[in-house]
Amino acid sequence: MMNIVQMGLGPIGQQLTRYLAEREGISIVGGIDPDPNKIGNDLGEHAGLQKIGVEIAPDLDSVALLDKADVAVITTLSSLKKVSPQIIEAAGHGLDIVSTCEELSHPWQTQPEVAKRIDEHCRKQAVSCLGTGVNPGFLMDYLPSVLTSVCQKIDKVKVERIQDAEPRRKPFRDKIGIGLTEAEFKAKRDSIRHVGVEESVRMIADAMNWQLSDVEETLELVKADRDLKNDRIDVDKGQVSGVKQVGRGYRDGKEVITLVFKAAAGVTHSHDTINISGTPTFTSTIDGGINGDIATSAITVNAICSVREAGAGLKTMLDIQVPAYFDEASP
Amino acid sequence: MMNIVQMGLGPIGQQLTRYLAEREGISIVGGIDPDPNKIGNDLGEHAGLQKIGVEIAPDLDSVALLDKADVAVITTLSSLKKVSPQIIEAAGHGLDIVSTCEELSHPWQTQPEVAKRIDEHCRKQAVSCLGTGVNPGFLMDYLPSVLTSVCQKIDKVKVERIQDAEPRRKPFRDKIGIGLTEAEFKAKRDSIRHVGVEESVRMIADAMNWQLSDVEETLELVKADRDLKNDRIDVDKGQVSGVKQVGRGYRDGKEVITLVFKAAAGVTHSHDTINISGTPTFTSTIDGGINGDIATSAITVNAICSVREAGAGLKTMLDIQVPAYFDEASP
Repeated sequence: MMNIVQMGLGPIGQQLTRYLAEREGISIVGGIDPDPNKIGNDLGEHAGLQKIGVEIAPDLDSVALLDKADVAVITTLSSLKKVSPQIIEAAGHGLDIVSTCEELSHPWQTQPEVAKRIDEHCRKQAVSCLGTGVNPGFLMDYLPSVLTSVCQKIDKVKVERIQDAEPRRKPFRDKIGIGLTEAEFKAKRDSIRHVGVEESVRMIADAMNWQLSDVEETLELVKADRDLKNDRIDVDKGQVSGVKQVGRGYRDGKEVITLVFKAAAGVTHSHDTINISGTPTFTSTIDGGINGDIATSAITVNAICSVREAGAGLKTMLDIQVPAYFDEASP
Repeated sequence: MMNIVQMGLGPIGQQLTRYLAEREGISIVGGIDPDPNKIGNDLGEHAGLQKIGVEIAPDLDSVALLDKADVAVITTLSSLKKVSPQIIEAAGHGLDIVSTCEELSHPWQTQPEVAKRIDEHCRKQAVSCLGTGVNPGFLMDYLPSVLTSVCQKIDKVKVERIQDAEPRRKPFRDKIGIGLTEAEFKAKRDSIRHVGVEESVRMIADAMNWQLSDVEETLELVKADRDLKNDRIDVDKGQVSGVKQVGRGYRDGKEVITLVFKAAAGVTHSHDTINISGTPTFTSTIDGGINGDIATSAITVNAICSVREAGAGLKTMLDIQVPAYFDEASP
């Protein structure tokens, strides 16, 4: 049995509570969130379940069963700077850490000082810390890195994640600007983006020991080519239906990594495709793509075993054992 | 710079010599083979290259630069019982070990005593040992295990490797019985098979912590539905064009893992397909499939870094860091 403390009980945290409650061999022993409206409520009820007898606390020190906890699962924010104190807090209590913080997935080049501080603190506390999720963390970085294993030579890695955003949870749909006008999109531009594109480019390069001379990221809006209206979305033709981001990694000025992320309502052929150019050249495709909300809950929990096996310090997906689905229900 | 000793200089060993000679950051410091006709020859010339100044020796003790070696790459046989003394020899010299021995890829259930002996010996010598290759070792076991990472629940894993065997090296084509009559195939049946199907079933189960109640393996011949003749093959319609093997893993009597391996000349749509049934259900496909000869050389070398990073003992692909292609040529 592994005992989890959840840190962060927003939409992803609640989704995770529901999933953890189902999963055998794992128990939730605590949940914290700074929101005064949540504190004191039952964690299960907060996630739309029956009571589970765990009261939401404001911080780890207030978690009644903290001494039973093995792992902290942090689902708070995308910004590593903001999540960093929470990691330090959890590590200080001797907890291994798995987080969906996108910027934690591969922070060694993007935020080297923060990464180093977390790494040193985790080593001192003899705990390990991993940022993961479906993207960043799997589809556009880890999985392409895994696929390079069968190659004698790599010239270029191209990954496309093209997805219909309509089935995604509302915060995700809002994050990518669905339903905004072009002017609104431009005004909100800095907050409208999928976080983690550069981290994914960096992870692929790191996997192959490639030194990149430059990394670029572009973002553009996608406009609805028709009215898109149902009980989840309400987009007029010409309004923003989503976002397209492209990350590019260069070696000696040559583009060697290209990541295309497009999430928009009305996309008709969702797919996750990895194209490796080299020896051999091949393309691996998941038609229909992977639903990010389901998969992020899954991999966050699945990675726990590998994180617990890992040595102390800040880890990336490249450093850990295969974070496969695991079943504790077997005899 | 990593220094390699090759053990076994048959077709796969020679292929590996050619690949290692090209690859930067890796140097071949020795090569051994018990065949008296090979001993004393230059390892490069033996593989069809220029001289590389390394003389083929009969055993590790006779390798001049043995004290420079870091890793032994063993490409001798499929039988773990026969390869085991070579592993013990290499470990005894303090070398980490990567081998293409199919039965080494996941021997914990299939040959537990041998596995335990190797593990204990490697731990004592503080070296690590891995069996890998494209199949077993990657396409039908490691990669499906990796893909389960994004799943909340797994009901079944099905993998199909369907390949046109015509472009494969001759020993492989012979191994799968191409050009035999049905009677010849039946007489040779025990030697005509792709080794590693059960190991792959076991690896997938191990990844998910599944206890299997039973594992089955079937083998049947594939007959040519037309004459297949060119400079590589000569098969009359009705003769054997290859082999189809199916591995099945059961939990509580229910088939939960199905591996279909078909290698035959004249197959028109080669592909490597992984179907995961669960939450979510999805299919990942590599159209055209992965050429096994290229990929086995690649992953054997790519895994070296991860094996060197791994702790002491017998490892499987599940235990090591992502064995991605790595480039030592970068500044």
